[in-house]
Amino acid sequence: MKKATQQQTKEHNRSLVLKIISEQRNISRAEIARVTGLTRTTVSDLVSELITDRLVEEVGHGESMGGKSPILLALAENSRFLVGLDLAHDQFYGAIVNLRGMIQQTVELPVDGLTGEEALKAVFDVLDLLTASAFTPLVGIGVSTQGLVNSRDGVVITAVNLGWRNLPLARILQERYQIPVFVINDSQAAALGEYTFGEGYQQSNNLVVITARHGIGSGIILNGELYQGDGGGAGEIGHVTMVREGGLPCRCGTIGCLETVASTQAVIRQVQLLSGDPAGINRTQLSHRDAYDAVIRGYEGGDPQIIHVVMNAAHFMGLAISNLVGTLNIHRIVLSGEMTRFGQPWLDVIRETMEETTLYGLARETHVEIGTLGENGVLLGATALVLKDMSSLISR
Amino acid sequence: MKKATQQQTKEHNRSLVLKIISEQRNISRAEIARVTGLTRTTVSDLVSELITDRLVEEVGHGESMGGKSPILLALAENSRFLVGLDLAHDQFYGAIVNLRGMIQQTVELPVDGLTGEEALKAVFDVLDLLTASAFTPLVGIGVSTQGLVNSRDGVVITAVNLGWRNLPLARILQERYQIPVFVINDSQAAALGEYTFGEGYQQSNNLVVITARHGIGSGIILNGELYQGDGGGAGEIGHVTMVREGGLPCRCGTIGCLETVASTQAVIRQVQLLSGDPAGINRTQLSHRDAYDAVIRGYEGGDPQIIHVVMNAAHFMGLAISNLVGTLNIHRIVLSGEMTRFGQPWLDVIRETMEETTLYGLARETHVEIGTLGENGVLLGATALVLKDMSSLISR
Repeated sequence: MKKATQQQTKEHNRSLVLKIISEQRNISRAEIARVTGLTRTTVSDLVSELITDRLVEEVGHGESMGGKSPILLALAENSRFLVGLDLAHDQFYGAIVNLRGMIQQTVELPVDGLTGEEALKAVFDVLDLLTASAFTPLVGIGVSTQGLVNSRDGVVITAVNLGWRNLPLARILQERYQIPVFVINDSQAAALGEYTFGEGYQQSNNLVVITARHGIGSGIILNGELYQGDGGGAGEIGHVTMVREGGLPCRCGTIGCLETVASTQAVIRQVQLLSGDPAGINRTQLSHRDAYDAVIRGYEGGDPQIIHVVMNAAHFMGLAISNLVGTLNIHRIVLSGEMTRFGQPWLDVIRETMEETTLYGLARETHVEIGTLGENGVLLGATALVLKDMSSLISR
Repeated sequence: MKKATQQQTKEHNRSLVLKIISEQRNISRAEIARVTGLTRTTVSDLVSELITDRLVEEVGHGESMGGKSPILLALAENSRFLVGLDLAHDQFYGAIVNLRGMIQQTVELPVDGLTGEEALKAVFDVLDLLTASAFTPLVGIGVSTQGLVNSRDGVVITAVNLGWRNLPLARILQERYQIPVFVINDSQAAALGEYTFGEGYQQSNNLVVITARHGIGSGIILNGELYQGDGGGAGEIGHVTMVREGGLPCRCGTIGCLETVASTQAVIRQVQLLSGDPAGINRTQLSHRDAYDAVIRGYEGGDPQIIHVVMNAAHFMGLAISNLVGTLNIHRIVLSGEMTRFGQPWLDVIRETMEETTLYGLARETHVEIGTLGENGVLLGATALVLKDMSSLISR
């Protein structure tokens, strides 16, 4: 517990006012006073500061409630820009976004197999392009990577695919680009992205977002804040053991992890083993992405063997969600990542399995749905991390 | 976010001062000022109020640091008392405790099989005895029960063994005893108990306490607060599916839950099926408690079949903890409940399994240990719930 001081109170209230203007879109000073319980004078002072800082602007007049028609305020969404970077398995995907998470410009760089210094060089390549863009001022860079990340210090503890270990990524990028840099695990980023910019999640205090692509992970929002655990690794459900006997080896070193049965790599591997090569992916050396596209085509074409593989993956995802619901009792579970391309039938099997295997009282009110941000969720989440502390934004 | 007001600030600071006096035991006003950052005048005023309320007392003089030797303050631990009640599977166990969780008087009532109104009548019987004791004033009653509980409203949503459904237990008891009543799930209570009164946990911000007895559940402490989830059911790991094929039916209606393989009922059931009846529990109709004592005797006597059953239970507990660690990345996991009577060999297998099946980076810093409160943990946790809001105590 900390001592509450006047200065803290002021900063707290200023962030609060900015948050409300950001969420409500057009809102008057009087309405802000009503919602926050702050006096009109206090609200007016804080709004003046935010206008001076060009974070808030007056955008017209609202309906009169009898007296003068009130001036409406809105977030100056293009007054500052952020860089987001998603270091995904087979490509690095970067973008410039505004304060509302609207994408202004993107850069994609295929990186299949790059590791160590080469991978870091590729990060520079993407960021060099983005930081040279016409969107200014840039107030920060958010980078998401698979693996275990210490977000507080901006250090990538281990990212197996990228061959990084104890890499002080935030410091390196901060020195190079001279703006604040934040680093976050990709699944945690996706959760923050959906929560911050997705449609309709802000009302939920608690939310779990599961990202299922080449790897599987989740991000947990508790009381409106990303929960990262004691070591930054909260939500690492991809390596929960699902198959105890006869499980496949996982890149983490153990066997039968959720990733080995419910990820895109698991589905591709199983489809490759099917008789008759129904997806046509064994003849040539396809990239992960092309192989996955081929599987999707086979699935959408109704191939029964491929459908069986996908539904089996869905079944295991349902079991994993059942575990999560039992542990956290969070009513809203959102799915994101490439696996969501299997759509409604995949989602239905996940839901059925979850309902069958979860304690009745817990499953009843639990909703499992597909996220609203598509493949941009991770990238947007990385920028949301920059935005998270509204007060730090104010002082820039 | 709420508006920070002067009144809130004052209450916050008063709770803070009381908390520090409670934690530090003998402490001077000057030291409180140093620790909290509050001015000496503020601290003196708040301490005066707490002394007037008889919550704090002066207990002597500390060492002089040059000037006058400072007066030391301590919590007036016997100035108020609390009632705790643990509605365990086979007996209701109640006690009067002081403000430090020290047990003053206990009542035990065997209840094997009581349900519905009869069970409620047994609760009255225990509480009638305790509330008539000489320990006054009583400031509140904390009741823990298995099942799904809405702690906010004090309603037992479902408690299968007790045959309760949507029972407004807090309201019923409050009307009968005219003091505040709090209701909590038993595993959540155990977590709160260990965290509040156990040795050495207060430094951890995050903690998971798993209670393994007739049922299995856990309580999750996050940022120093009990996390209950959207519906109050957080920590219900007893019904996570552990055996997918050939699992035993669980009282929850599904099959292969953790409870069916790692609880005292699971161990008793499996020992009963052993050839030669090594624990000698098939000849007579033993109570759960006596059967379990017989199993413990066989185990301590070195019966290899019984040891095998217990180690198998430990293995599944290790897997369940691995799931938890993957999801929450909490470094400290505490085990409580009757299963802990299997001691070190049981704990060793749990640890080994956890380490083998958890992602390396997460397992490395995770400590699994046996709790310090023994079978009193649940009961003490129920009283900790009453104590949780120190400020509510102040106003009484």
